[in-house]
Amino acid sequence: MSSTFHGQLTVSIFGQSHGSAIGVTIDGLPPGEAVDLEALQDFLNRRAPGGNAWSTSRKEEDAPEILSGLLEGYTCGAPLTAIIRNKNTRSGDYANLKDLPRPGHADYTAQIKYGGFQDSAGGGHFSGRLTAPLCIAGGICMQVLARRGITIGAHIAAIGGIPDEPFDPVHLTREDLLAPGYKPFPVRSDAQGEAMQARIAQVKAEGDSVGGLIQCAVLGLPPGLGDPMLDGLENRIARLVFAIPAVKGIEFGAGFAAAGMRGSENNDPFCLEDGQVRTATNHAGGILGGISNGMPLLFQAAVKPTPSIAQRQRSVSLSRREEAGLEIQGRHDPCIVPRAVPCVEAAAALAVCDAFLEQEVRRVL
Amino acid sequence: MSSTFHGQLTVSIFGQSHGSAIGVTIDGLPPGEAVDLEALQDFLNRRAPGGNAWSTSRKEEDAPEILSGLLEGYTCGAPLTAIIRNKNTRSGDYANLKDLPRPGHADYTAQIKYGGFQDSAGGGHFSGRLTAPLCIAGGICMQVLARRGITIGAHIAAIGGIPDEPFDPVHLTREDLLAPGYKPFPVRSDAQGEAMQARIAQVKAEGDSVGGLIQCAVLGLPPGLGDPMLDGLENRIARLVFAIPAVKGIEFGAGFAAAGMRGSENNDPFCLEDGQVRTATNHAGGILGGISNGMPLLFQAAVKPTPSIAQRQRSVSLSRREEAGLEIQGRHDPCIVPRAVPCVEAAAALAVCDAFLEQEVRRVL
Amino acid sequence: MSSTFHGQLTVSIFGQSHGSAIGVTIDGLPPGEAVDLEALQDFLNRRAPGGNAWSTSRKEEDAPEILSGLLEGYTCGAPLTAIIRNKNTRSGDYANLKDLPRPGHADYTAQIKYGGFQDSAGGGHFSGRLTAPLCIAGGICMQVLARRGITIGAHIAAIGGIPDEPFDPVHLTREDLLAPGYKPFPVRSDAQGEAMQARIAQVKAEGDSVGGLIQCAVLGLPPGLGDPMLDGLENRIARLVFAIPAVKGIEFGAGFAAAGMRGSENNDPFCLEDGQVRTATNHAGGILGGISNGMPLLFQAAVKPTPSIAQRQRSVSLSRREEAGLEIQGRHDPCIVPRAVPCVEAAAALAVCDAFLEQEVRRVL
Amino acid sequence: MSSTFHGQLTVSIFGQSHGSAIGVTIDGLPPGEAVDLEALQDFLNRRAPGGNAWSTSRKEEDAPEILSGLLEGYTCGAPLTAIIRNKNTRSGDYANLKDLPRPGHADYTAQIKYGGFQDSAGGGHFSGRLTAPLCIAGGICMQVLARRGITIGAHIAAIGGIPDEPFDPVHLTREDLLAPGYKPFPVRSDAQGEAMQARIAQVKAEGDSVGGLIQCAVLGLPPGLGDPMLDGLENRIARLVFAIPAVKGIEFGAGFAAAGMRGSENNDPFCLEDGQVRTATNHAGGILGGISNGMPLLFQAAVKPTPSIAQRQRSVSLSRREEAGLEIQGRHDPCIVPRAVPCVEAAAALAVCDAFLEQEVRRVL
Repeated sequence: MSSTFHGQLTVSIFGQSHGSAIGVTIDGLPPGEAVDLEALQDFLNRRAPGGNAWSTSRKEEDAPEILSGLLEGYTCGAPLTAIIRNKNTRSGDYANLKDLPRPGHADYTAQIKYGGFQDSAGGGHFSGRLTAPLCIAGGICMQVLARRGITIGAHIAAIGGIPDEPFDPVHLTREDLLAPGYKPFPVRSDAQGEAMQARIAQVKAEGDSVGGLIQCAVLGLPPGLGDPMLDGLENRIARLVFAIPAVKGIEFGAGFAAAGMRGSENNDPFCLEDGQVRTATNHAGGILGGISNGMPLLFQAAVKPTPSIAQRQRSVSLSRREEAGLEIQGRHDPCIVPRAVPCVEAAAALAVCDAFLEQEVRRVL
Repeated sequence: MSSTFHGQLTVSIFGQSHGSAIGVTIDGLPPGEAVDLEALQDFLNRRAPGGNAWSTSRKEEDAPEILSGLLEGYTCGAPLTAIIRNKNTRSGDYANLKDLPRPGHADYTAQIKYGGFQDSAGGGHFSGRLTAPLCIAGGICMQVLARRGITIGAHIAAIGGIPDEPFDPVHLTREDLLAPGYKPFPVRSDAQGEAMQARIAQVKAEGDSVGGLIQCAVLGLPPGLGDPMLDGLENRIARLVFAIPAVKGIEFGAGFAAAGMRGSENNDPFCLEDGQVRTATNHAGGILGGISNGMPLLFQAAVKPTPSIAQRQRSVSLSRREEAGLEIQGRHDPCIVPRAVPCVEAAAALAVCDAFLEQEVRRVL
Repeated sequence: MSSTFHGQLTVSIFGQSHGSAIGVTIDGLPPGEAVDLEALQDFLNRRAPGGNAWSTSRKEEDAPEILSGLLEGYTCGAPLTAIIRNKNTRSGDYANLKDLPRPGHADYTAQIKYGGFQDSAGGGHFSGRLTAPLCIAGGICMQVLARRGITIGAHIAAIGGIPDEPFDPVHLTREDLLAPGYKPFPVRSDAQGEAMQARIAQVKAEGDSVGGLIQCAVLGLPPGLGDPMLDGLENRIARLVFAIPAVKGIEFGAGFAAAGMRGSENNDPFCLEDGQVRTATNHAGGILGGISNGMPLLFQAAVKPTPSIAQRQRSVSLSRREEAGLEIQGRHDPCIVPRAVPCVEAAAALAVCDAFLEQEVRRVL
Repeated sequence: MSSTFHGQLTVSIFGQSHGSAIGVTIDGLPPGEAVDLEALQDFLNRRAPGGNAWSTSRKEEDAPEILSGLLEGYTCGAPLTAIIRNKNTRSGDYANLKDLPRPGHADYTAQIKYGGFQDSAGGGHFSGRLTAPLCIAGGICMQVLARRGITIGAHIAAIGGIPDEPFDPVHLTREDLLAPGYKPFPVRSDAQGEAMQARIAQVKAEGDSVGGLIQCAVLGLPPGLGDPMLDGLENRIARLVFAIPAVKGIEFGAGFAAAGMRGSENNDPFCLEDGQVRTATNHAGGILGGISNGMPLLFQAAVKPTPSIAQRQRSVSLSRREEAGLEIQGRHDPCIVPRAVPCVEAAAALAVCDAFLEQEVRRVL
């Protein structure tokens, strides 16, 4: 337990930020699935930091090497393992994190849990860098799902309180869903996106960081996927989305807003559209009783501001048992929300692919 | 998969609302744990509907019968199974739900998934009644945790937009934590509680229902519990809390509010208090990198309004493929939020007990 | 972990020999499967002790009550739970087992593991009685498999060294496979069966017990079921067959005999029969690389003699730390092999049904 | 499911014989465990083929590269991943195996299961080469266990019917246990070992192969490890030992011999030795009710003869649907039993380490 998801798919993620390599093993993919490595690389590039305003300038070349499970471009039924070599393996500038933990990071809790044996360089196994293998696994699942007519997309729903336009919960089209992902700054409204980028620039200039919201949708899901109680789509997606280090909240459909609504408002009336059963509204986010109802699946994740900031902060020296000031050296990423967008898509893809595979078992018998 | 949680504890929940019995098996409890059945019954009574304004008048006598795993008041190491017999097993008034699904319920998705074989009486396995076995399992875990100094409590944080006072995230005491649970209407501020009850009465009179928020806290957690990535405390708690049918969102610590904050605000500075490492604020909700940091663990769940309302609603006849009006007969529960409070506690208790057991493995070696 | 099997099917077994009830929950059965309760009862009766020479005269009325998961004779998609009430719940005559453990029983190891909190009456959770819920689960799976053309049967292969005729590993027919199960003493050769019964009678007269072998076969398995490495058919079947308390060995196909063979003898040549790929011999027991090859699946389990015997035995008083003689009171079962035959079938049925469900996932995509 | 073991430890094995790399991820090792890479290499060398009479001359340099989980020689709490690059990645000589499957190999079943997408070069994921990552994981667990006083060893118990001397089941010493592992040909009696090697040479000369038995023991196990029913030591060990491709049978303690014994013979009387509870004999193989009793744990595995032989064999062309002769090119390993000895140790080490970690959870509470 810890870094393994165990369902129809077993997904095992490994590596530390500054170790030799990070990677992932996916066991349970059906054989004969084409994996387009170029498309996968494009997807991974969406989470890689670039030379732009809202990310660190550390250049990660996240080119995965497939060690197993793929033969001449097709899954072969054996576990698929992919790794990414770490270029940045020096750990000098992280030496004191075991003594003087950074606020908002896992330095302190890792120190307690692993008794000083943890790899603290760059956050070790807790680093946001570990979302790269998550994206490899999710990116492959997205290709598997796409061939079955299921599309996943996300956009920045807000940064520092500046909102983007939300997806239309009822009439969302595939084009609308995919559009943000093609942009360097994945928003729906470019005007709002510019305001967000201005906010990021300002925050960066102040040596600070800022959080945001990500909205994700799944289109083309047949009704009947997911299970009641512990393996509903909400349970599975939540479990995987919280694997992204900075996520602190998740809501499906109307979510927290539903808490203030009445049943007569929140209930989605059933209706017929071209002979298909649909709902007139979609406060349920496409999920009833943990199971897809054929409407767009919609959820939103809250991403906290990056804890690494340039400003001086208060901490405690664990060895000296005294309070002490802390300044984190190096360049900081003032906002990871844009890069977290594909990570949220990847987490959703893994959860949906898992539920899809399980549903198939039950159906065929 | 579906109704089984599989970690250090394996928790398997079974039953349908109007079947012969509902129940739960917990495998993995340490031997020699005293189980106070009277205290457990008191806990279960908190989720049982009473003859009050905010719940249905159907009287459930949720007296569990322990079938195994308990010997002379102590766990014996074998799986513990408890069942509750259903009194209300007539299913006549649910006959047409397979054809005319209720908006907001799982009737439609169950029909698709199980092809008409599902038990639709009273919602079957999707019924809120299945939270009773969840509470049995969680109630036992709460006793196990209490002996280790870990206390769990929750309160109604809001109903229909009327807020209760939140827990103090830094200085929460055991008394404050447990106080709401002793009240018939589990709030912190009785004045706010009365306003909420008035709102419920009004909504009920209009044949409608209303949703709300539940805030839950865990006190006394040692630092170091939970794991990075897929088995963090957030992942485990989220997976279990979404097992409660009406929950549509969850947030930890500052949660969605953190999305609008800056790093310099959201980061909790480390400080020393009586020689203990603590944080001056608690936006992290006691969790860093998925692992407890020794501060109060805090989260909030969004509960949608009960979908069963007296008002006429729009649905679709699945056999005739035409839209049709639907009126749900019988008495309705205008607000399940008060009854969901112990369910949220139970879900948290299971997740925390699971993480507690796992942490112990790693520590002793 | 302990009494839960977690694959495509989750099977959770609970209860103690002299507790209120024993039972099982099966999560993951497809919906719409007819369960013939009369046929299930017939199957359970095969493991129940009767008034015959080779079993104790304690009369167990193993009539399961289905608590959930079944609606009007069909699985409804929700977890299926069945319990059997224990009639014999007095525990007086087992009081001293915690101090003076019976040789060959789990009394000593349970005392160490559970620190005295274990339920030692009748062997508690370690009792052979717990094979009744295993047979409920397996019996249901046998019905599911039978509808897909897969038949499972077993017979006593030997008792105390007296052999039965083995199944024909290549040309086994459905009739030959099922024949032993219809007999009160499940052997192929009635002459050998009489010799075995005479041996049992003799052993019983001497206050002793005797062990034996059980051979089990599965017919009608399509090729392609099972997985390499850890979830091969051998791995799954072995894991489940060792859940039967007295089993101490298992071999597939030629098994231990293969260890003395040459490759040229042991390899099964492929051939064509009516256009079907088959093998001319079947030393592999129908499994290559953990995966079914379409030939009869064959395995054999070794059952140790019942440890409860009337003769005086040597033990140690754990409290007094001194060696002491032990005489086990009550009637003893001189040979459990006949009753273990349906248990082995049940274990095989669970493993095969699990692999069958998994294979379906991979196939359909 | 398939190549992942999921208990206290999650062990995920990946790779194909002629792919880029094979490897393993172990999640759940306690932090702060020293891993002696030199000792690990020595252990791996025991399964590597050398230039001797009984193995193929293909030289595998099984030098694992640790990608994660290890920091300055100690486990750091994050998943440990190790890979071995494959030198031999040409696949030309395996091209026709998809059409003309080798008897005794998984070629045919893989073709059916994976529909032609499988990697058949060198047996792909079914290759005995995949026991190398199993040995990496097991070898690390052996180091973890050794620090707790638990030692694992095995020897060739027989080859082609020529027996070695068995371990003393009651008075086995650590020296006796480890002695065979230091020898190039791991037997107890060198005279018997020479006879075995002569048999192998003869078989090789005839273009044939031969099987054998491996006996394995675990010393120093505290009583109380393992669980009843599905997670007994027998269940866990069997599940892991059957991951070794050629194993077709397993027996614990007296095993199959117990089937012919009487209870009065087979029951191990309890006795006191230096104040310790022990048993005078050890037919149980150190396991009662799935739980260790403090005596040496003993089991034996049956290894079938290598299916690859030089002699011409009968097969079927799957495309032409006609019988056809088959000659397997290249050098063959006439007996894999010596190389399988460390693999059996590794499988036992994983199972025991898993049970050890679990027991610790229960004990501390």
